[in-house]
Amino acid sequence: MKQSRRGQVDPFIVMDVMEAARKAEAAGRHIIHMEVGQPSTPAPAGARRALALALEQPLGYTVALGLPALRQGIAQLYRRWYGVDLDPARVVVTPGSSGAFILAFSALFDAGDRVALGEPGYPSYRQILRAMSLEPVGIPTRPEDRYQPRPQDLPQAQGLILASPGNPSGTVLRRDELAALTARAAELGMAVISDEIYHGLDYGAGFHSALEVTDDVFVINSFSKYFSMTGWRVGWMVVPEHMIRTVERIAQNMFICPPHASQVAALAALDCIDEADQNLAVYAENRRLMLERLPQIGFDRIAPPEGAFYIYADVSALTTDSLGFAAEILDKAGVAVTPGLDFDPHRGAQTLRFSYAGSTADIAEGLERLARFMAAR
Amino acid sequence: MKQSRRGQVDPFIVMDVMEAARKAEAAGRHIIHMEVGQPSTPAPAGARRALALALEQPLGYTVALGLPALRQGIAQLYRRWYGVDLDPARVVVTPGSSGAFILAFSALFDAGDRVALGEPGYPSYRQILRAMSLEPVGIPTRPEDRYQPRPQDLPQAQGLILASPGNPSGTVLRRDELAALTARAAELGMAVISDEIYHGLDYGAGFHSALEVTDDVFVINSFSKYFSMTGWRVGWMVVPEHMIRTVERIAQNMFICPPHASQVAALAALDCIDEADQNLAVYAENRRLMLERLPQIGFDRIAPPEGAFYIYADVSALTTDSLGFAAEILDKAGVAVTPGLDFDPHRGAQTLRFSYAGSTADIAEGLERLARFMAAR
Ligand SMILES: Cc1ncc(COP(=O)(O)O)c(C=O)c1O
Ligand SMILES: Cc1ncc(COP(=O)(O)O)c(C=O)c1O
Repeated sequence: MKQSRRGQVDPFIVMDVMEAARKAEAAGRHIIHMEVGQPSTPAPAGARRALALALEQPLGYTVALGLPALRQGIAQLYRRWYGVDLDPARVVVTPGSSGAFILAFSALFDAGDRVALGEPGYPSYRQILRAMSLEPVGIPTRPEDRYQPRPQDLPQAQGLILASPGNPSGTVLRRDELAALTARAAELGMAVISDEIYHGLDYGAGFHSALEVTDDVFVINSFSKYFSMTGWRVGWMVVPEHMIRTVERIAQNMFICPPHASQVAALAALDCIDEADQNLAVYAENRRLMLERLPQIGFDRIAPPEGAFYIYADVSALTTDSLGFAAEILDKAGVAVTPGLDFDPHRGAQTLRFSYAGSTADIAEGLERLARFMAAR
Repeated sequence: MKQSRRGQVDPFIVMDVMEAARKAEAAGRHIIHMEVGQPSTPAPAGARRALALALEQPLGYTVALGLPALRQGIAQLYRRWYGVDLDPARVVVTPGSSGAFILAFSALFDAGDRVALGEPGYPSYRQILRAMSLEPVGIPTRPEDRYQPRPQDLPQAQGLILASPGNPSGTVLRRDELAALTARAAELGMAVISDEIYHGLDYGAGFHSALEVTDDVFVINSFSKYFSMTGWRVGWMVVPEHMIRTVERIAQNMFICPPHASQVAALAALDCIDEADQNLAVYAENRRLMLERLPQIGFDRIAPPEGAFYIYADVSALTTDSLGFAAEILDKAGVAVTPGLDFDPHRGAQTLRFSYAGSTADIAEGLERLARFMAAR
């Protein structure tokens, strides 16, 4: 049995770090986790309560686009967050935002099409594209542009993925930047997919949806991060009206439906803004600590972390081998961090990503360890 | 924004029936549902209890291949059901068997590859293939072969999907048939994917896994049917050893992981065989009623329904328009049935699928209504 070419996607480098961390823990060491990209908190209590109450129901397949009440609730978020009036019919509930990417790519692109994306960026964009016989086209971004692409950087391609806040950078596209990028993409005939899955996690700068500037866009979001529901696999996508039927048919066939129990929990999570904001307050304090200490410790070339829970540091003054450097930090400091290579195949050998999604006590301890490690270096 | 060619998948015809049934119900009519392909029972009580107890845990992302204990438990099923020793490392937990098809197709086939499949068959095979730029190649099957392909029917293609029990036919491939088909496929250089999601739902004839005859196969199964967990979106796939790493990487990127809460429930479901077998006893009684009454009523050209919960009837003596016939049955008899066109684009205008997944009272009432309808025709 032969393997396909499209199936030869790259491994996650962070997995090696996580495996090394797991081994160290199994050997009795205490490790601080600054590598993981997810909250350590459970789904909101109200969400879990709602599911517990629903467990007597059959929870069979739902309609492919998701529970109508959930689509309605998500549409209302757009009014609350951005002042945008959104027809719930345009909201597609998906198995995580990951599932949304699969749907969007199927609906928009044919084999061989080129899809542009900023470097650094979330590694799975590239790999999902490859697995679907599409060609990722990296756009190198610059620290002085906060690691976001500029309109003049867009190549000839059929598609463009934007991410704000970005992973790993945490940087946010302003409203005028979203407008300029989507306008330029339209000129070039590119379909735009806007990944907004870290919305809600901002620290005063605010955030804008691509939907504020155009309806001709696929906007992707998720209950994973702000609502602390990674493992539940429920996200959503807002599509232009003329794409609803196409996306529905693809979803019916590829997924049947998003997990029903998770949809019940997600619907209730929409009413748990207080708990989500409590988690946000923890990240805000973690971020404050990080921004105070990291530069003192020697990690002073960092992207302005306006959203999400990541800090992306240029460590080119310290190493040209981020993989080895991350291994050294794990070994000597007992702190797991992510080498930049996952996010940027070209310049990631000189960058690291620090996650501050953990507890404040862990972040403080991690920073202490990093300080001692760097002082001894 | 342009739509892709690959995204132009066919609509489900059964959706029109379901929508018409919903409208009739909204207008106050009582409808018997013989169109739906899922149990009306909830997940096993033990599964729901286990999840209720786990709800205090974070339930974050799991590893991509699924909870190790669940993979282990599934491997043990193969010993229990088929006497096959299976390394749990070869078991991949997936977001429904639907997710397993996406993984298998990505790992095995490149854009333009041809994948053969029996007609009639589960409609989403075709549509998922198309959405991934693959070419479905229908193999017309014959009633006298129980609607299953024969080795001499296999065309030149890169892949072959087998289904036993099949949907809509309910017919089962015997061990020697599986051996002959997989051997012929190997000769032709075809990768074989064996859909076994109705295993467990058999009525005395027994069922065999393709794993009994070869390791060079992707075997797909699910908690949806026998374990009555359709909406939970948890299935699995057994892959050849040399494909594990490839499938793992694709799964990491495309899905991150199957829903964590559903995995917890599924793990506990493996210990709820008694409850699953109680559901099976209901289907067995429903099937007995169907087999007794349908031929008397006038539906006498039916495939031997050895497994699953479907009966596939050749109604060519009654109509050449199964869609109109199904609409007439809904309208006049108040029974929703599925026109065959979803399963067989060529001959499905002369077939119907009856599902007996409902309660025995509903099935008995449905049969009464069908009898009155046919007598008055
Ligand atoms: C930028 C970005 N997009 C998408 C995802 C996928 O998230 P999910 O599928 O849990 O919604 C992630 C996960 O870390 C991410 O960082
Ligand atoms: C033959 C067959 N395969 C696969 C599936 C997909 O099931 P699931 O994704 O719920 O495991 C179905 C659903 O009806 C089916 O009938």
